[in-house]
Amino acid sequence: MDKLVREEIFNTAKSWILEAGNIIRNKINEPMEIGSKSNPNDLVTSVDRSTEEYFVNKIKSKYPKHLLLSEEGFGDNIQTVDGTIWIIDPIDGTMNFVQQKRNFAISIGIYHEGIGEIGLIYNVMEDILYTATRGEGAYKNGQKLPPLKSGVVLEESIVGLTHLWLCENPLVDERVMQELVQTARGSRTYGSAALEFAYVAEGVLEGYLTMSLSPWDIAAGMILVNEVGGVSTNLDGNVLDILKRDSVFTGHPEVHKRILEDFIKKGRK
Amino acid sequence: MDKLVREEIFNTAKSWILEAGNIIRNKINEPMEIGSKSNPNDLVTSVDRSTEEYFVNKIKSKYPKHLLLSEEGFGDNIQTVDGTIWIIDPIDGTMNFVQQKRNFAISIGIYHEGIGEIGLIYNVMEDILYTATRGEGAYKNGQKLPPLKSGVVLEESIVGLTHLWLCENPLVDERVMQELVQTARGSRTYGSAALEFAYVAEGVLEGYLTMSLSPWDIAAGMILVNEVGGVSTNLDGNVLDILKRDSVFTGHPEVHKRILEDFIKKGRK
Repeated sequence: MDKLVREEIFNTAKSWILEAGNIIRNKINEPMEIGSKSNPNDLVTSVDRSTEEYFVNKIKSKYPKHLLLSEEGFGDNIQTVDGTIWIIDPIDGTMNFVQQKRNFAISIGIYHEGIGEIGLIYNVMEDILYTATRGEGAYKNGQKLPPLKSGVVLEESIVGLTHLWLCENPLVDERVMQELVQTARGSRTYGSAALEFAYVAEGVLEGYLTMSLSPWDIAAGMILVNEVGGVSTNLDGNVLDILKRDSVFTGHPEVHKRILEDFIKKGRK
Repeated sequence: MDKLVREEIFNTAKSWILEAGNIIRNKINEPMEIGSKSNPNDLVTSVDRSTEEYFVNKIKSKYPKHLLLSEEGFGDNIQTVDGTIWIIDPIDGTMNFVQQKRNFAISIGIYHEGIGEIGLIYNVMEDILYTATRGEGAYKNGQKLPPLKSGVVLEESIVGLTHLWLCENPLVDERVMQELVQTARGSRTYGSAALEFAYVAEGVLEGYLTMSLSPWDIAAGMILVNEVGGVSTNLDGNVLDILKRDSVFTGHPEVHKRILEDFIKKGRK
């Protein structure tokens, strides 16, 4: 993607994500419609839908040739990575949004011919914007994030994962995952994949594992983590396909390798 | 405790906790000494110690008759609940403090003849101060927290607990705890007991369980949770002794009851 074109798209996307966040903040205490999708805890609200529509309208009017892949179904039906695709989660961490009224994010990843060019993750209630453009580093509210430190060991690391990894699950023997959390220095669960990717990029978590994520959950985060020298794969260590749902494991390269080899591989079903 | 006396102590404690937090914020990026206590992940830093010394000096000079029970050992040797006791954790969530440089708190509970009169929990990096005085409600940055809603069910609740509850542990059969996280709507791990108590008081978590806490971890939080109608007990549902280390379970009264009866009791060792 041409650098000047990319810069213009970046600035536009940044102004839209801040405006969309502002709209959400202003109505955070208003009543909203809450429903569920695949299961009773897979929540969706009228705010998820209206925020997605905000982006659809903006993108279709300013960039009519760009495509949109997004969570609530107002986007395009996309089969290939051709062209420029905006991959958007209007509210990542909907359970936090509904029950905590914080700890959620808007996530936008912009891909051109399959390559991640621009990533934006906006922690709406804390007003913290994480941004990245390919090859030019990752930023937190305009401040460049340093590359991840080398020489980090699992025993001094904090790993993000849900508690369900430690229960019987279809992916990995839960006893191996129990051993993992007992080996790491600490483990945390925050409930927003986009924010947990951002925390990995900040070096606040050394790894984040999740059983099944969609493109919009990871599109921005992968670009951010990549820019500070982190690694994102599926549970088998393979490259992620940006159009497919898959297991996801992002982290510090040394800790990622250690967890894959000494834990996941041993318990992989 | 006399109301006017209590008000004066409250205002003094509030000014001290804000000043101590300000000192920590100003040196958050300076190098610090890091050591460990009971195990390699039980961290302590020079900032824990200097913050505790700050409070010891303040209290001993302004309130020479008051006693101090605190984490790093600069306080008094306390055997009874007689008199006025300040129970202080200078940095609650030291692992977060060291590795994340956020998500930690200063916690102060002030007890008079064994009764919790004043609680303050200061989320230092977010500059959020939770306060409570017995019988007068709990506040977040000066805004009164509403009483916990009634009619809350576990299936729509978020519970805070570490992943270690789901591994073999001396307190509860881990399979029962696995069932618990599969029954709740969500589970979270934040790594600071004081903040997790505050989140229960805010209604952002419906429960928080922990295997073993000291007086300074819970002294302020119990007062906060109590003021919004929440319940704090040990794992057997018994009242907590404010001078002893014990298991701790705080939460929304209905969710607390359900978790105790349908889960903990069934798996208690």
